[in-house]
Amino acid sequence: MSPEIRFDKWNDLYAERTAALKSSAIRDLFIVASRPDIISFAGGMPDTRSLPIEIVIEATKKVLQKEGPAALQYGPSEGHLGLRKCVSKLMAENNMHVDTDEIIITDGGQQALDLLGKIFINPKDNILVEGPSYVGAIQAFSSYQAKITSLPLDENGLLIDSLVQALEDLKKRNQKAKFIYLVPSFSNPTGITLSLERRKALLKIIKKYDLLAIEDNPYDQLRFSEDKIPTLRSMDNSLIYMGTFSKIFSPGVRLGWVAAPKPIIEKLNFGKQAADLCSSSLTQRIVEEYFTSYPWEKYLKKQTELYKERRDVMLESLDKFFPSDAKWTKPGGGLFLWVTLPEFVNTAEMLAKSINEAKVAYVPGKAFFADDNGKNCMRLNFSYPNKEQISEGIKRLGKLIKSEIKLRQTFTDKLNLNND
Amino acid sequence: MSPEIRFDKWNDLYAERTAALKSSAIRDLFIVASRPDIISFAGGMPDTRSLPIEIVIEATKKVLQKEGPAALQYGPSEGHLGLRKCVSKLMAENNMHVDTDEIIITDGGQQALDLLGKIFINPKDNILVEGPSYVGAIQAFSSYQAKITSLPLDENGLLIDSLVQALEDLKKRNQKAKFIYLVPSFSNPTGITLSLERRKALLKIIKKYDLLAIEDNPYDQLRFSEDKIPTLRSMDNSLIYMGTFSKIFSPGVRLGWVAAPKPIIEKLNFGKQAADLCSSSLTQRIVEEYFTSYPWEKYLKKQTELYKERRDVMLESLDKFFPSDAKWTKPGGGLFLWVTLPEFVNTAEMLAKSINEAKVAYVPGKAFFADDNGKNCMRLNFSYPNKEQISEGIKRLGKLIKSEIKLRQTFTDKLNLNND
Repeated sequence: MSPEIRFDKWNDLYAERTAALKSSAIRDLFIVASRPDIISFAGGMPDTRSLPIEIVIEATKKVLQKEGPAALQYGPSEGHLGLRKCVSKLMAENNMHVDTDEIIITDGGQQALDLLGKIFINPKDNILVEGPSYVGAIQAFSSYQAKITSLPLDENGLLIDSLVQALEDLKKRNQKAKFIYLVPSFSNPTGITLSLERRKALLKIIKKYDLLAIEDNPYDQLRFSEDKIPTLRSMDNSLIYMGTFSKIFSPGVRLGWVAAPKPIIEKLNFGKQAADLCSSSLTQRIVEEYFTSYPWEKYLKKQTELYKERRDVMLESLDKFFPSDAKWTKPGGGLFLWVTLPEFVNTAEMLAKSINEAKVAYVPGKAFFADDNGKNCMRLNFSYPNKEQISEGIKRLGKLIKSEIKLRQTFTDKLNLNND
Repeated sequence: MSPEIRFDKWNDLYAERTAALKSSAIRDLFIVASRPDIISFAGGMPDTRSLPIEIVIEATKKVLQKEGPAALQYGPSEGHLGLRKCVSKLMAENNMHVDTDEIIITDGGQQALDLLGKIFINPKDNILVEGPSYVGAIQAFSSYQAKITSLPLDENGLLIDSLVQALEDLKKRNQKAKFIYLVPSFSNPTGITLSLERRKALLKIIKKYDLLAIEDNPYDQLRFSEDKIPTLRSMDNSLIYMGTFSKIFSPGVRLGWVAAPKPIIEKLNFGKQAADLCSSSLTQRIVEEYFTSYPWEKYLKKQTELYKERRDVMLESLDKFFPSDAKWTKPGGGLFLWVTLPEFVNTAEMLAKSINEAKVAYVPGKAFFADDNGKNCMRLNFSYPNKEQISEGIKRLGKLIKSEIKLRQTFTDKLNLNND
């Protein structure tokens, strides 16, 4: 931190919520992780190097030739109708049926989280999330001064009993949860998928407690096998559903959406107007063109196969190079897996050594919890680094972790010796 | 409003701030105003039909061929460095010297307003604006539950005495203003420019009262003559400065910026991360390419000449068709002028008739005030409709206004008759 920043003469002027606005660990890592000497498992980036650039050029040219003035003009705040039609079609293919006026286009999934926070959260409102959950969601809800509770998971996703417990605890204190936020498929950060059985149980609880639920589903189409579990929204249309073009096409166009009942869309639309008037008319039309005139499934399949190969290399490398007392998830899709190390390893403290000595970046686990958990965990991304980088990076990271464990063992042994 | 919207079962769940989130009159008019049978003076749209589309296609192609994967990827939340360099250069040409790390890229000027609101405004904070001021600013600040005070203007801009009065009034109540928000050049909605003398006086007051000031300057380069008044920021570098590419290039790319001291940029950056991670890497690079490799000043000059011609036609038509007791501003640049009608004419009430009968859209004046003022005023846009539409539209609108005045006169005459 530079001296200018430390002395901030505007310090008394900031709003209370500004104290909750902290830099995301991930965004900070962005700068370090893009250094060419670092192997980075820290990002959440799809591999845009494998996108069909010539097709994007062609789509853009078509859009500008066909309707350039409109593409360069302001557009409706709920989003370009052509793109909302495209979203409606994408969702229908996934057994979710929504009209175009039940959809609002946002600047990626992150703006959807911000607008949902804006219209729903009063300071101190209770919000429930998975523990761990997407760091950007925790950040967006925190910026509206929510009180966030992280609920425990296992390899089949959210533990439904823990949700019931949390709801009962709130009830006892005469409080309610404003909503629960979930990433049920190939979750960020764990890669875990909520099982069908749990989905059914979850929907029963939601109904019983009249709990508003938000399903964030960016990774569903990055599936490594044919096993498809229905979305929560396809089983219960009272849910708010979030989608994004960031993972099935490009994060650089900054486009996502919310599908929700009309009264909620109307409120989100007011929020969107105040937030940025509308999303880019140009990128909305490029995405519309890409998803209506080109075989995007083919490109996505190619990309997903690449991610699958990389996941495989990461899993093999973890088996080979990580200590036997480390555990990790085995995701069936998505971009991430989640490593749990022995409890005494603090991944946040280890990060500096990892970057400076091992030249490997990851995201420390505690960023994904609203409470004190996750200190011995890390999120690893396998979609962006190539296979050689993955095996080399995991090798170096494994070596570092083993030496940390050994250091601790030596220390403990000495203590034990002294105690004798 | 549809019946579904009127019955909103989520009504108890919304945050308190959501009550302040109302649809902007202007965005609502967007739908009506785009009907082909309506002559619209309602928008705030630059004439994108006069942009060099082939150049934009070429710039986009270059960007994607040169660095496609990066243009389609996430980028830093403070914005693409190349674009921040471009902003720094643009500002330097206007006598404002800022480093790239004193700049953050936003999704148009509107997101800058939202982020400034987010980091500065607590509920009930006092914010000062010009009366009338930009409706999007009033909306953004209201969404953070600010208490907004509109300060009166004349043809030379803000009345400095009224600012002093407001600050003294606050002082007496042991309160302070969080900041003052100003559009000093070719203002939206009036087209009025703050005179040099007033600028100097204003800066003295700001210093004396230690008042944070935000200068929003979207229209400065849409000047119809050579007379250039220095920006406030060029005279005092403690000000927060807002710029946008919407009026000098395209609103469809959704890009603007804030230039401010580093500690404020850092806070805005945290806000930006929570709001949407980053602006579009693609449109940022297209804009960078357009402003560094092409003669954008030439295109802008052509566009500005078009606006000047249209302003001239609008002023002539107003002279010819509007009643003698109407007054209007004579802007030296920008997109708008402001009409004040006799006090008894309610422009909000007249709007339905104007759209349905005269087939002319405008924005009622009251939207631009935080208080009860502006009811007899309207904002007219002259940048988007062509000359024929302007003379025809003003003719029809003049006829409607005259008939409204006559109706009132007949009514008053009768009353007087009855009173006799």
